[in-house]
Amino acid sequence: MNQAIQDLYPDGHSHCFGCGRSNRDGWHLKSYVDGGKTHAQFTPEDKYSGGVPGHLYGGAVASLLDCHGTASAAAFRYLQDHNSLQQVPPIQRHVTGQLNIKFLKPTPIGVVLDLSGELVSIEGRKVTVRLTLTANETLCAEAEMIAFGVE
Amino acid sequence: MNQAIQDLYPDGHSHCFGCGRSNRDGWHLKSYVDGGKTHAQFTPEDKYSGGVPGHLYGGAVASLLDCHGTASAAAFRYLQDHNSLQQVPPIQRHVTGQLNIKFLKPTPIGVVLDLSGELVSIEGRKVTVRLTLTANETLCAEAEMIAFGVE
Repeated sequence: MNQAIQDLYPDGHSHCFGCGRSNRDGWHLKSYVDGGKTHAQFTPEDKYSGGVPGHLYGGAVASLLDCHGTASAAAFRYLQDHNSLQQVPPIQRHVTGQLNIKFLKPTPIGVVLDLSGELVSIEGRKVTVRLTLTANETLCAEAEMIAFGVE
Repeated sequence: MNQAIQDLYPDGHSHCFGCGRSNRDGWHLKSYVDGGKTHAQFTPEDKYSGGVPGHLYGGAVASLLDCHGTASAAAFRYLQDHNSLQQVPPIQRHVTGQLNIKFLKPTPIGVVLDLSGELVSIEGRKVTVRLTLTANETLCAEAEMIAFGVE
């Protein structure tokens, strides 16, 4: 009933390494709408270490925020026009135009990471969302994304 | 003679998935100083696709900019005090405080990607650098990073 946003992407747009269901080598991040916000959880493997073992490398932090952000943008736009996420009409894939990340604390490896997204605004094709990445209830990174809907 | 910046990181800080020489599963990005700027080249594997095959996923674009950016910050700071990059005294690892990325064009997979970095400012522990990612001479992404030196 509460379906992952990424599982609603059209087949041709489902190959992302970070979140595409059709990428057999990828991370398959799954984002959900809940109570007007979006949420996702992910536990990275040890190999995605930063310079010092036990902490996630910056690129993975950015990847999780990026994939969760574009899913959030797609969902918020869809929910503007429809009561709930559905297969029909198809959800519109969104791509990142701008991603501004603040790295606040080192992100630990070996715990579940929590991602959240909230809508800032929708103006035409442009959707702005605010994102957080939290570990053990500590805010590790936050970001603002501008995403654009694509056909 | 022109040594990769990442190969000068202290052993304890050399485990990054994106650029650490000690991460056996990682990408081993190598950044070099040349003519007052920094440069790196990288050719991602096909699996790092975005939603549509043949294009790099946003997280990988961010990862390359992040790893090249922290290396650039470390090198620019070192070169402020020394004539050239050397083993002794050791280079100071830098970590990202803020990374603001503009995704300008889809980044193709299957070609060599070129990364560049230039110094904007050094203020105490804070180094600001400007970064680009180019493919086939097309500017695909640009970023500004604020990085901080760590002990």
